[in-house]
Amino acid sequence: MEKGVVKLGGFAFPLRPDPAVLKGLASIFKRLLGEGFKLAVVAGGGELAREFIRAAREAGASEAVCDELGIMASRLNASLLSVFLRPDEVPEIPSDFTSLSRAMSSRRITVLGGLQPGQSTDTVAVLAAELMGSKLVVKATDIDGIYTADPKRDPRAEKIPKLTYEEAMRLLSGLPTRAGSYELLDLQAVRLAMRSGIRIRVVDGRDPEDIYRALKGVDIGSLVGP
Amino acid sequence: MEKGVVKLGGFAFPLRPDPAVLKGLASIFKRLLGEGFKLAVVAGGGELAREFIRAAREAGASEAVCDELGIMASRLNASLLSVFLRPDEVPEIPSDFTSLSRAMSSRRITVLGGLQPGQSTDTVAVLAAELMGSKLVVKATDIDGIYTADPKRDPRAEKIPKLTYEEAMRLLSGLPTRAGSYELLDLQAVRLAMRSGIRIRVVDGRDPEDIYRALKGVDIGSLVGP
Amino acid sequence: MEKGVVKLGGFAFPLRPDPAVLKGLASIFKRLLGEGFKLAVVAGGGELAREFIRAAREAGASEAVCDELGIMASRLNASLLSVFLRPDEVPEIPSDFTSLSRAMSSRRITVLGGLQPGQSTDTVAVLAAELMGSKLVVKATDIDGIYTADPKRDPRAEKIPKLTYEEAMRLLSGLPTRAGSYELLDLQAVRLAMRSGIRIRVVDGRDPEDIYRALKGVDIGSLVGP
Amino acid sequence: MEKGVVKLGGFAFPLRPDPAVLKGLASIFKRLLGEGFKLAVVAGGGELAREFIRAAREAGASEAVCDELGIMASRLNASLLSVFLRPDEVPEIPSDFTSLSRAMSSRRITVLGGLQPGQSTDTVAVLAAELMGSKLVVKATDIDGIYTADPKRDPRAEKIPKLTYEEAMRLLSGLPTRAGSYELLDLQAVRLAMRSGIRIRVVDGRDPEDIYRALKGVDIGSLVGP
Amino acid sequence: MEKGVVKLGGFAFPLRPDPAVLKGLASIFKRLLGEGFKLAVVAGGGELAREFIRAAREAGASEAVCDELGIMASRLNASLLSVFLRPDEVPEIPSDFTSLSRAMSSRRITVLGGLQPGQSTDTVAVLAAELMGSKLVVKATDIDGIYTADPKRDPRAEKIPKLTYEEAMRLLSGLPTRAGSYELLDLQAVRLAMRSGIRIRVVDGRDPEDIYRALKGVDIGSLVGP
Amino acid sequence: MEKGVVKLGGFAFPLRPDPAVLKGLASIFKRLLGEGFKLAVVAGGGELAREFIRAAREAGASEAVCDELGIMASRLNASLLSVFLRPDEVPEIPSDFTSLSRAMSSRRITVLGGLQPGQSTDTVAVLAAELMGSKLVVKATDIDGIYTADPKRDPRAEKIPKLTYEEAMRLLSGLPTRAGSYELLDLQAVRLAMRSGIRIRVVDGRDPEDIYRALKGVDIGSLVGP
Repeated sequence: MEKGVVKLGGFAFPLRPDPAVLKGLASIFKRLLGEGFKLAVVAGGGELAREFIRAAREAGASEAVCDELGIMASRLNASLLSVFLRPDEVPEIPSDFTSLSRAMSSRRITVLGGLQPGQSTDTVAVLAAELMGSKLVVKATDIDGIYTADPKRDPRAEKIPKLTYEEAMRLLSGLPTRAGSYELLDLQAVRLAMRSGIRIRVVDGRDPEDIYRALKGVDIGSLVGP
Repeated sequence: MEKGVVKLGGFAFPLRPDPAVLKGLASIFKRLLGEGFKLAVVAGGGELAREFIRAAREAGASEAVCDELGIMASRLNASLLSVFLRPDEVPEIPSDFTSLSRAMSSRRITVLGGLQPGQSTDTVAVLAAELMGSKLVVKATDIDGIYTADPKRDPRAEKIPKLTYEEAMRLLSGLPTRAGSYELLDLQAVRLAMRSGIRIRVVDGRDPEDIYRALKGVDIGSLVGP
Repeated sequence: MEKGVVKLGGFAFPLRPDPAVLKGLASIFKRLLGEGFKLAVVAGGGELAREFIRAAREAGASEAVCDELGIMASRLNASLLSVFLRPDEVPEIPSDFTSLSRAMSSRRITVLGGLQPGQSTDTVAVLAAELMGSKLVVKATDIDGIYTADPKRDPRAEKIPKLTYEEAMRLLSGLPTRAGSYELLDLQAVRLAMRSGIRIRVVDGRDPEDIYRALKGVDIGSLVGP
Repeated sequence: MEKGVVKLGGFAFPLRPDPAVLKGLASIFKRLLGEGFKLAVVAGGGELAREFIRAAREAGASEAVCDELGIMASRLNASLLSVFLRPDEVPEIPSDFTSLSRAMSSRRITVLGGLQPGQSTDTVAVLAAELMGSKLVVKATDIDGIYTADPKRDPRAEKIPKLTYEEAMRLLSGLPTRAGSYELLDLQAVRLAMRSGIRIRVVDGRDPEDIYRALKGVDIGSLVGP
Repeated sequence: MEKGVVKLGGFAFPLRPDPAVLKGLASIFKRLLGEGFKLAVVAGGGELAREFIRAAREAGASEAVCDELGIMASRLNASLLSVFLRPDEVPEIPSDFTSLSRAMSSRRITVLGGLQPGQSTDTVAVLAAELMGSKLVVKATDIDGIYTADPKRDPRAEKIPKLTYEEAMRLLSGLPTRAGSYELLDLQAVRLAMRSGIRIRVVDGRDPEDIYRALKGVDIGSLVGP
Repeated sequence: MEKGVVKLGGFAFPLRPDPAVLKGLASIFKRLLGEGFKLAVVAGGGELAREFIRAAREAGASEAVCDELGIMASRLNASLLSVFLRPDEVPEIPSDFTSLSRAMSSRRITVLGGLQPGQSTDTVAVLAAELMGSKLVVKATDIDGIYTADPKRDPRAEKIPKLTYEEAMRLLSGLPTRAGSYELLDLQAVRLAMRSGIRIRVVDGRDPEDIYRALKGVDIGSLVGP
């Protein structure tokens, strides 16, 4: 059975949910199920998480509690996506690794959000891949790959089509770990991907077909791997 | 010990949370705790609930599943408010009546959202009052009482300072029960209030002092009672 | 797939359980399963609930706590009925809406009792129908329909074969909401049925064949609908 | 702190609960709390358990499932007793040993029913005593002690005021272990009492004062001990 | 469907787990599944349990708490065995009778450890057999049957190929019930086996083929039965 | 209130638990409680984890499942330590961040093990510190600090008394992330410590007094900080 994990970034979860976007994503996932795929889809916290974390910081909450609010937001996002896949069920989003394993052993597609403070949804995606025995995580975001600099700010930024784990870690090791700020790709996710030889492909998810292609093995976006 | 239940409407939970509003509310609740009050605070789903329900409807979800998404949104709102009261704890929002009872028996203030599809957060507030032995629910909303018509649309609408349960039920019995639409006051909430002789006072929560006054017994807004 | 929800009133759950009655009901449900039906069966609290609520009132318990005891009793009733359907399993009765959804998505027949104080088992039946996508709730009781008055007391009472939601609500709006007293048909159940266009058929369950007929669409008893 | 465990037999839980009996028992327990006692009270399944087990047997349920129904009945009994002690809380009856420990570490009095098939409520009482560090279990039943034969049938039956563990085990080893039939005193309970040196005193609970006296160390009824 | 329960004694769970032993056992269980068997496998606590109980006693823990630690150790053993059966899942070991029933109704093979203080893993195996409707428990240990005396100490000890329940109970009634010391066969397990007519066959599990043979009905080791 | 988190490495949890070591540690913790401290103590998986992970690898388990077994082992270790602190309670080890928060808000000392695959117990210790509002994690291991090389193998290794977060990350970034192998100090733990300004002091826990001293602010071992 073909298997894969998809991490959906903020583009999929604007503050006012966009049914068209969610329908597009759900349709890709159903097509993959129809082709025999087994999938795990990890929803990021998106703008909702950032808004709640921002408010929590004003309340004096610690980074761990801010992380927790971000995780709650990502689970609400995951719940909504889940409704687009199974509108006749109350969404039940795995909240720990054991319930994730249970869900994945009885379902062909599992939708989840974050699991634990101190652990990004990128990391959750890699753990899901480990558990599932998948060697591929597709990180769908609003940029079509990993760049030498932020392409939205620096016109000279160039896309890097292939990075080794070591190169990726070097690129990421200077990035922050504040709650809600894991943007590009989380360092710990790369470290775990490396221990299990899991490749992470970063694609632009605003065109769901690119997620489909990446899962089918097409070489688009940027790839982090051995 | 003085006791009371507060239901917070959408004004407290805009889509982008407003820390100043939440601080103002938290400060009123802390003052009441300082004066020896025991409190339960029920967060409504607000705009977040409406947005998620709107999207879920497009996915073809049933009213019960839409209710459930609205409840999840109300719990996220409750979590954020809870952080303003106890920033050093992971918010744990009671998700059923038993966990509500457990929380209320060990805490002076309990924050919660919705509990169950088919049951508005107004109803949850009345049930919390029954459990707690309180005879007062303060419904804080963005209007300063119950009017003969919608005061935002009809300039001749007049505030009704006092309604019997029967009058309130007659006024409300034509209103809809669609998920996310319990606006004025939920009929089932009034029916349960009647069985236990609980008064419901509707006030404008945008001035938190009015919530304080209502809990202290001041005759403002509109009162539904025996 | 044909679908339906059955609410079983007190006739099915006398204080000393009657195995013959439960066998008769189980046999109807198994026949329907054999014909491809998907079912949810909601057990009322019956006499057991009334006895425990009566005692709890003497202890000074609030209506909400009395409701809770009635719900516990309904779950014990549901457990026993469940044993007649699956004698080789420990009965697990869904205690909230999420576990109900989980049970219904993995089982062809789900047996449950009450869920939440302030919410009758009639209401639970309508919510189960919403979730399941069924447009029919069969309320099996010890009278063969809805009457203009209590037929056990008033010889001039006449059966009403068809009521609109509005007519039903008018009939029911004067009835009490005390714990354990939802007898004829719960008003809130009708309100929720209306929001989703679910018909409620009231039949005499003492002849289980009437439950079967009602689920198969035969026009017996009384119907509340659009 | 003085400590003790009370096992309440069927006399306390007739099919139609008797508020006067429960008030009498609750009043004894409150008096003991007032004197500084720490208590665990184990409710037997009583007639409710026997009725449900009888019906379940007709459904073809195994002994283990019958045990489970008896346990559910005992928990309903425990819930009702709990309401007489704390009418303003939803009763939460520990359903396993871990939740029992949690309850006992935060409460001065814990009410519970059975825990596990294959384990009588007598055994549960001894385990609760072990956990609590109490050396005394008072088994309150409708006979004032252990007799050489069934005193209700055999006029020559004589009460045995003191039995060693070995004598008790010899007396009990011929008795059945069918679900719902642990009547006199469960053999396994005596075996566990022996491993921890816990004494079991059998008294007539129909006079609650005898339970009080037994907990205060008065030599009434029959004692099983070292 | 053929059914059976296996209790694995300490030989399977040395302090340093032996993958070869676990592979051998897993291979037998998979073969039986391939032949259409339904199985429950109960892991004992082994040396790990004894070591943790020994330490807990030095901490002044009660027998019930020592039992609990032994149960935790047995669950860790069960988790490891479970990984040999399903390496791609997080092991979930049923911790009470209800979760055991749920696991057994959805899985062809269920692995568990102890459930409850005061109840040996032998007893758990008999309860699992009752629930499953199996009439056979195979107790796999490091001796090939029940002997007149400890064959490791007494050269004149003779194997008893067949014992009635009564004979077994007489043999066992003198044995201790201290946490971690149920070695030969637990008396309560025999009592429960008797109530349901379940036979217990004791075999040497160090040769996994003997477990296979015993489940297939071969007359080896010692049999306790009617 | 003074606060601190202690991470206990493998020295505290040999395969055969050493009651003297656990008593020594418990005694330090009780002394600190007596002085008004609030504590969280995180048990590592130690040799037990390594043994179970080694066996699970032979079964073909993924790194994530191996992590999970290591976490289970760490919780068993935590349970035993907990018995030395509260011998009259069934140890309940928080298994996720929410239950950790609940435990820490009601207890002066909380004992836990690992929480989640992909997250070392070092990381758990830092998260606990964030949640608790403590600025200090004491990592007690079997070496008295962080060295330039492994002092057990390289005689020229020198202790580094003070490292900035950046220095520590540079030192650690080459180390592996395989399940059970986080030895020196986990990189992710340092990253999270940095985001909240938490200092990590590495001391030799074999002398429990050094743990005490480190918590009291004495400058021993090695310190990672701003």
